[in-house]
Amino acid sequence: MYNIVFIGFGVVGTGLAEIMHNKKDYLKNKYGFEYNVLGVCDLIKGSIYDENGLDLEKVLKLNKEKGKIIDYPAKEKGLKSVEMIKKPEVDIIVEVTPTNVKTGEPGLTHYRTALENKKHIVSTNKGPVALKYRELKEIADKNNVYLGFEGTVLSGTPAINLATRDLAGCEIKSIQGILNGTTNYILTKMEEGREYEDVLKEAQKLGYAETDPTADVEAYDPLAKIVILANTVMEGNVDLNKVPREGITKITLEDVKRAKKNGKRIKLIGKAWREGGEVKAQIKPEEIPLTHPLANVMGVLNAITFETDVTGDVTIIGPGAGAYTAGYAMLTDMLEIHRRF
Amino acid sequence: MYNIVFIGFGVVGTGLAEIMHNKKDYLKNKYGFEYNVLGVCDLIKGSIYDENGLDLEKVLKLNKEKGKIIDYPAKEKGLKSVEMIKKPEVDIIVEVTPTNVKTGEPGLTHYRTALENKKHIVSTNKGPVALKYRELKEIADKNNVYLGFEGTVLSGTPAINLATRDLAGCEIKSIQGILNGTTNYILTKMEEGREYEDVLKEAQKLGYAETDPTADVEAYDPLAKIVILANTVMEGNVDLNKVPREGITKITLEDVKRAKKNGKRIKLIGKAWREGGEVKAQIKPEEIPLTHPLANVMGVLNAITFETDVTGDVTIIGPGAGAYTAGYAMLTDMLEIHRRF
Repeated sequence: MYNIVFIGFGVVGTGLAEIMHNKKDYLKNKYGFEYNVLGVCDLIKGSIYDENGLDLEKVLKLNKEKGKIIDYPAKEKGLKSVEMIKKPEVDIIVEVTPTNVKTGEPGLTHYRTALENKKHIVSTNKGPVALKYRELKEIADKNNVYLGFEGTVLSGTPAINLATRDLAGCEIKSIQGILNGTTNYILTKMEEGREYEDVLKEAQKLGYAETDPTADVEAYDPLAKIVILANTVMEGNVDLNKVPREGITKITLEDVKRAKKNGKRIKLIGKAWREGGEVKAQIKPEEIPLTHPLANVMGVLNAITFETDVTGDVTIIGPGAGAYTAGYAMLTDMLEIHRRF
Repeated sequence: MYNIVFIGFGVVGTGLAEIMHNKKDYLKNKYGFEYNVLGVCDLIKGSIYDENGLDLEKVLKLNKEKGKIIDYPAKEKGLKSVEMIKKPEVDIIVEVTPTNVKTGEPGLTHYRTALENKKHIVSTNKGPVALKYRELKEIADKNNVYLGFEGTVLSGTPAINLATRDLAGCEIKSIQGILNGTTNYILTKMEEGREYEDVLKEAQKLGYAETDPTADVEAYDPLAKIVILANTVMEGNVDLNKVPREGITKITLEDVKRAKKNGKRIKLIGKAWREGGEVKAQIKPEEIPLTHPLANVMGVLNAITFETDVTGDVTIIGPGAGAYTAGYAMLTDMLEIHRRF
């Protein structure tokens, strides 16, 4: 029986909570995985805690109906995130506060507090892993707890675990990926002859792009992801602030057409490779031959090709965003905790 | 330190042995995985055993130079496979005898003997798993040992472990796969306007197809694989002998052209799905829309799309055959044994 707290309770946090609630019996019967949610701490929605467990169904209902959870009749209310993480009876921290790739906060403090207090952490928050992986991994190993961040790259589509676990024993020689759905959607639609600005507006209407689309179209989001892949899967020491980054804002309809004429397709590609004993990374638009598996990854789908020494090129394709798929990523990490500890 | 024996020492067995030998230090330093090869038993090449371990480099050299290993100065020679499996000091059995999907033998006896004697088994032999998975899994669970068969499907490209471990917690609603490289190569080349017979001859010259190509072109090979996926990943109870099977021998150039004209591509697709509380399976050529990730898997590559309930469709693409990739599949299973036991 694992005691779990949610730090952050936005779309991804509630996505995970819904999956776990709906699959409670399935997880118990199939994997012997049982859990109790003791607390939820969200800056806007409120902070509730009970060491005997919350009624997750009630919490989800309250959240759905009122957009906040503070009215839940919990034993303790108003605990700060760090206080909740430190509670001695808590085993696993679900960290789903917003990504900040400049400071990593507040996620970084949550990661450190969890690991230093010997709690497993599962998270979709890219900031801490993109900025401080080595430090965090060291604390996790020292305290014999799990640092789970499958959901930071390709959300629930296996990426980190695929490379480190299924491809264990291989040397990953290079990585190439379509790591951002919004930009891949825009490039896909431009191939149909539509202008960048036009497609961007549509993507915003569909909820694929934010009102301020900078993080996607200027490639800050996939930058963090390729840095995470470079530093975790390839054990590099890449500094996010020094990685060459180019978004898709300068891509014209002409560029897209010209590539197509040459049997190629423009994709925003995150790349990591070994050079002179070091791991290097970059993110920029590239022309990919149509025969390459990545060239045929269309719309909001994401994909990664891992070049390995003994089992060739392995490509994984799947959704890269969404409440359920991102939430699910943390469930797969929890099941690994259950197998391993 | 794991004590390992090889039952079978053909291309796949020697492929694994070479990888393990070349990576000996890497496996020790990175994963803490250390091993000792105590024995090799091959019907044609000979049977050698030493409870203190063989010199793997010498064994490989002998095999390369003489095509047999019987001249190795081993302590015990001529042990039968079953005798070697039962040796008390042996921990892991590498089973790489040829697949037989009618009786499963001699693999089935090797699997049973290993598991009943509390030895882990890792194998690329499809027969026993395709025919007797439930029985074998039960013996493995009862004796708390690992039944590793990643290499039976998509060889070293993660398939079984991807679905059961990375996608744990998901319900796999259906599976579609290109599970045979030879037929995919033939179909790819036919799209260039070449006749079936012509391409088949070329594939035989290149070593992609056997002199008797029946297992591939009549779809017996991918049949075994879709049955393995249906019964392991989807926990079905599919009887291999009752699964509808159709190969590619009736596909004409006309068919290929017509599909292409309609924005589709003919692929030999293994499929498993749920219907009325049961898992069903089939293997036959299908017209796949070009927008589907499987449609763009060309040449000898293999691929599988897993349809999941919470994380959408996940597609994996990679090599489906080859001495190193098939050999590697068993290494990844051994590393899982090392993590888990």
